[in-house]
Amino acid sequence: MRVDLGNALASEATPGVPRAALDRLDGRVTRAHERIERGRREGALGYAALDLPHRTDPTAIEEAVAPLAGAAHVLVVGIGGSALGAATVASALGDGSIHTLDNVDPAHTARLLDSLPLADTVLTVVSRSGTTAETLANFLVVREAMAAEGLDWTERTLVVTGESGPLRELAGEHALPALDVPAEVPGRFGALSTVGLVPAAIRGHDIGRVLDGGRRVAEGLSGSLYETPAYAYGAACYALDARGASVNAMMPYAEALEPFAEWFAQLWAESLGKEGLGQTPARALGATDQHSQLQLYRAGPRDKLVTLVRPRERSELPIPAPDHSGTGERAGNASATGEDAPATGEGALASLRGTDLGTLLDAEFQATEASLAAADRPSVRIEVDRLDASGIGELCYGLEAACVLAGELYGVETFTQPAVEWGKCAARGLLGGGDGENGTTSEARAVGERTELVVE
Amino acid sequence: MRVDLGNALASEATPGVPRAALDRLDGRVTRAHERIERGRREGALGYAALDLPHRTDPTAIEEAVAPLAGAAHVLVVGIGGSALGAATVASALGDGSIHTLDNVDPAHTARLLDSLPLADTVLTVVSRSGTTAETLANFLVVREAMAAEGLDWTERTLVVTGESGPLRELAGEHALPALDVPAEVPGRFGALSTVGLVPAAIRGHDIGRVLDGGRRVAEGLSGSLYETPAYAYGAACYALDARGASVNAMMPYAEALEPFAEWFAQLWAESLGKEGLGQTPARALGATDQHSQLQLYRAGPRDKLVTLVRPRERSELPIPAPDHSGTGERAGNASATGEDAPATGEGALASLRGTDLGTLLDAEFQATEASLAAADRPSVRIEVDRLDASGIGELCYGLEAACVLAGELYGVETFTQPAVEWGKCAARGLLGGGDGENGTTSEARAVGERTELVVE
Repeated sequence: MRVDLGNALASEATPGVPRAALDRLDGRVTRAHERIERGRREGALGYAALDLPHRTDPTAIEEAVAPLAGAAHVLVVGIGGSALGAATVASALGDGSIHTLDNVDPAHTARLLDSLPLADTVLTVVSRSGTTAETLANFLVVREAMAAEGLDWTERTLVVTGESGPLRELAGEHALPALDVPAEVPGRFGALSTVGLVPAAIRGHDIGRVLDGGRRVAEGLSGSLYETPAYAYGAACYALDARGASVNAMMPYAEALEPFAEWFAQLWAESLGKEGLGQTPARALGATDQHSQLQLYRAGPRDKLVTLVRPRERSELPIPAPDHSGTGERAGNASATGEDAPATGEGALASLRGTDLGTLLDAEFQATEASLAAADRPSVRIEVDRLDASGIGELCYGLEAACVLAGELYGVETFTQPAVEWGKCAARGLLGGGDGENGTTSEARAVGERTELVVE
Repeated sequence: MRVDLGNALASEATPGVPRAALDRLDGRVTRAHERIERGRREGALGYAALDLPHRTDPTAIEEAVAPLAGAAHVLVVGIGGSALGAATVASALGDGSIHTLDNVDPAHTARLLDSLPLADTVLTVVSRSGTTAETLANFLVVREAMAAEGLDWTERTLVVTGESGPLRELAGEHALPALDVPAEVPGRFGALSTVGLVPAAIRGHDIGRVLDGGRRVAEGLSGSLYETPAYAYGAACYALDARGASVNAMMPYAEALEPFAEWFAQLWAESLGKEGLGQTPARALGATDQHSQLQLYRAGPRDKLVTLVRPRERSELPIPAPDHSGTGERAGNASATGEDAPATGEGALASLRGTDLGTLLDAEFQATEASLAAADRPSVRIEVDRLDASGIGELCYGLEAACVLAGELYGVETFTQPAVEWGKCAARGLLGGGDGENGTTSEARAVGERTELVVE
């Protein structure tokens, strides 16, 4: 992983980080790195995640999934960290047959189940506690859908869960393959564990190479941001946020990294968003969002860092030459009101002649980066060699290490998410599963006391 | 469409809008509404979009697409406003067979083309000017892929474009069905025109009902925010932004509204993000993002408004009862470190007994809203009766009207997007399609002058 902070310096952008401030911050990075290393040695909550590339045993995973390997489809039932890591890895590997059911929308769930050949689908149910309401609900629905097609769900289900709890018991009772979620690793830091790798392993991908990528970044961690790309990124985000860049627009230039941007958004929001602090992640996608978000990024409030991510090599897909028959051989009469106003038809077409899609996408990457710089807006460039198993391992590990460092600099509890409990208690109470009278909870009672100002 | 501002009042949240401030703002809404009405009467740029429910002729669209109607798949080639409206309508209608190619990623494009049965696919190419580089490039690639399968692309292609330009000429030459993009309507405001409705019409949906929904909201526009849900929302966003809610997290509780959140993000960012102003849209999804973004929304910086959107009726999908065989009939031993820590297995399971997915999702909607209120964080609730053709018409029109009003209050040029031109010129120059020597542009030359601070 390669990080370029050039366009985030105060000499280039507002807000930006003065070189001298980065130098001073490096002293804090040194001390933070020592704390991180200590946490890893002690296997402390969260820090333990940074050892996953060494701790996760790909052979053990491959053996456990062997009875189910080769399925045409994998359906992951999980939510949050139990789904996003797996989706991120699957997408980077180009596997469109790993599906995620991470919401409890009846219309969506019904459509997904209708579209899947359940006889050829392996179900993985992922929940550390085994008590996540959304996950249990979907599991029960999928199980019933399998039964309705005369399929034995116990023959095509695998669970990834903690040492005990309802899912663990269920696995024991039905002799389901069951894998452990690693101890002391919050879900959002689990991409390089069973949580993120099991679906890819079922589909036959080389998950060892994903771990290799993570290991390469892990072995490069040092006490200086100038030597450690992950820390350079984490420190720059922190320093820019302190100077006003309260939004971090994660904008990969690769469709296969769209889930990665979502995964990053959870990592960043849930780890750093506490005690009034934390940079807000915004998910974007290049080049598409040039036609959606770039106007705001370039000309709106100076509260954003744009993180541009790309693989340095892409597959080739030539753009065929337009034929003689008029695909824009003559000049277009562009309307000044359109979303794509300026170029003449000749210019637009000339720029495509003899090139390919990847070259066009990379030109747009460079153009967007330069266009932000020309407007004095900060951006950071992150690159990996290729978008493959190793590349996604690098990116996931690198951003996790960046997040852990940023958490140290902010001084927050990176590995907890206390603010979400209130809503869980409220929902449970509304559904009659709470500890109070009639299964309610005090939070659920508060739901009924809302203030209304309705306009209809 | 029904808007509830109760949880955005200063009495309930920080930041929040004092009732008295809303009352004063209503005077400005009255005057803004007069300007909007004048713009509509004059057919002025952008304001004309608010007449689309009356201007768009569904029968003309249905007749134009008749030769292609009933195709198993529709592939929309367009980008930005030329894609998002169509994707939003298609998704709300539950149609998974309308696909969008709105990026120039070679790996993604190749995969999409491999997965589509091209013989059963209709291609729609959408670009007002007919010169959009990404759209032309993808069009040339898709055309070649059809030819490679021995298919005549001219028999399965329809264009949606302006009065002149390369696509218009091409349509003339090959006698392709061609539909006009409406005059004076920027792409991002085109959901209720040919741009948003053609793919749905090809697939046989009742696009007249989408327009009906828009018309119902249009007919309710009045000079007071207290009588006009769309204006209530636009005014509240403006007033909250002025008080520090610089981020607007659009969080629909419906998977089928995920593209709607993206569509909204373009509408909001490109229309309002100018001259240092504009509220930053963040795309979220309920209930999924409770396990990702809610921690930040509830406990991070007080710079957010959360917009909660839902249909009031959902389809039914009962959650089957867990059997005797242990699916969590006993208490789980939840780990304090997990993403789903608290509940006992009994509580989690009890809350699912005898309910259905939609009830669970609605409980989570209410719980999230109340959990934000309990932390004094502002939210606005937007509801439609059902998520169907009419409902998505209401939502699109309603949010467009909200955006137009907000633009008036900010005092920006809502209907242009000048900041994106720089990057387009740069990309064109990099690819040799500019007006300068060797096809370069001054912007492209600036790309080479970047400052580096590389860590690897």
